[in-house]
Amino acid sequence: MSVEWQPVRQSRTHELVLQSIEEQVFAGKLRAGDRLPPERELAPVFGVSRSALREALRVLETIGVLVAQPGRGPDSGARIVRNPDDALGRLLRLHFALGSYGLHDVLEARVALERSSFAAAARHAEAADLDEAESVLDRMTRPGVTPSEFNELDTRFHVLVASSSGNALTSTLTAAVRESVRTLILRALEEVDDWPATQAHLNDEHTELLRLVRAGRGEEAADLAEAHIRGFHGTLVDEVNDAHDAGEDGEPAAER
Amino acid sequence: MSVEWQPVRQSRTHELVLQSIEEQVFAGKLRAGDRLPPERELAPVFGVSRSALREALRVLETIGVLVAQPGRGPDSGARIVRNPDDALGRLLRLHFALGSYGLHDVLEARVALERSSFAAAARHAEAADLDEAESVLDRMTRPGVTPSEFNELDTRFHVLVASSSGNALTSTLTAAVRESVRTLILRALEEVDDWPATQAHLNDEHTELLRLVRAGRGEEAADLAEAHIRGFHGTLVDEVNDAHDAGEDGEPAAER
Repeated sequence: MSVEWQPVRQSRTHELVLQSIEEQVFAGKLRAGDRLPPERELAPVFGVSRSALREALRVLETIGVLVAQPGRGPDSGARIVRNPDDALGRLLRLHFALGSYGLHDVLEARVALERSSFAAAARHAEAADLDEAESVLDRMTRPGVTPSEFNELDTRFHVLVASSSGNALTSTLTAAVRESVRTLILRALEEVDDWPATQAHLNDEHTELLRLVRAGRGEEAADLAEAHIRGFHGTLVDEVNDAHDAGEDGEPAAER
Repeated sequence: MSVEWQPVRQSRTHELVLQSIEEQVFAGKLRAGDRLPPERELAPVFGVSRSALREALRVLETIGVLVAQPGRGPDSGARIVRNPDDALGRLLRLHFALGSYGLHDVLEARVALERSSFAAAARHAEAADLDEAESVLDRMTRPGVTPSEFNELDTRFHVLVASSSGNALTSTLTAAVRESVRTLILRALEEVDDWPATQAHLNDEHTELLRLVRAGRGEEAADLAEAHIRGFHGTLVDEVNDAHDAGEDGEPAAER
């Protein structure tokens, strides 16, 4: 039997610090709201340089589990938080830009997540949970709303319905997936021939969606949400689709 | 009219470097496979210290868009890649541990994503795409497979079906969401009274799922996938559920 040599994976200092902090989280010893000791105290505890420590802290900030607290005194030292939304949005936005997945993938993921959100919202949402979505819809319906304003409000509308379903993960994923194609959708909205007509059509669907959710008609809301998202992607981004879809840039799939 | 003061958001050096690299990605100037110049050349270009540059690079590594290339010569400098899977898995795992969302949220997100995956796999997968899932299933079915081995194989089975649907985003999200509760599911599997019976039951469902996908019966596959995931979560993790669900630790929801 011949000897088999396996490559060793070289762990770098910041990665070890990261793992050590993560282990405290998994063990339930570090919880949201807790503070880490200041860098100057923490670095010697880990036996690492302050720059290696800071690399690990920056990573934790970027994935939304830590916020830096500038200043001294009892409030200094970073604090553990749970803000996954921006982190997920950035991650998916970058990977979409790099072609890790294409627009068709985004469309199908949105359909899956939002069917679930609308059905769950119809089951669980209290009337008051939907008032904010209603007021966002009012603003979207005003004459003179620009495609850019509409794009922001549309994202908020869909995310508010997802939140009203009570599912924090689905609403986070919905927001991040929508966020990853924000620029593309904005560009498409700006190129629409008859913007007021498009706006009116999309808002008719939004109004009906909200009505079905308020009436507790989950299955119909899910079906309309699917048609709404497919129509939106279909009419608006067909031309961009082809140019942008993953795999067309000749990048080897094995890169993923 | 009184003056309104807005808080200014203090951008730190590494964040500016990060934004600058991201802009190159969004503009399509940095693509998968491209190399960044070595740190000693790049830091003066940005006009920042090497430690600030390195903080930004570590963040990009952690979200799976960069790999460090140790060594000198033409291959030195980090390379742009698209590996979202580990990054997403880590992010969701940490946020699940912190209670950013609960097990019920994970269950509903899995149902939404996997219904979509199984339906799409039935439509799009070639026979050969499913052979690897079939061989994973063979291994899961062997007598003597431990809960820990089963847990790994089960994750792979579900992710392979998602991949066979051709949707890179759905399969990435499926893997990450499943990964976020890996430890919890393992613990539950290990506490099952009659492990061989549980194993046999789950594999009967896996076998039927694969048969429906191969037969192109997408809607039935989606329905069975939903029942399979709900049953799995229901039987196995009911007791952990209550203890672990978000919101029970008294952490203010506003933290999110």
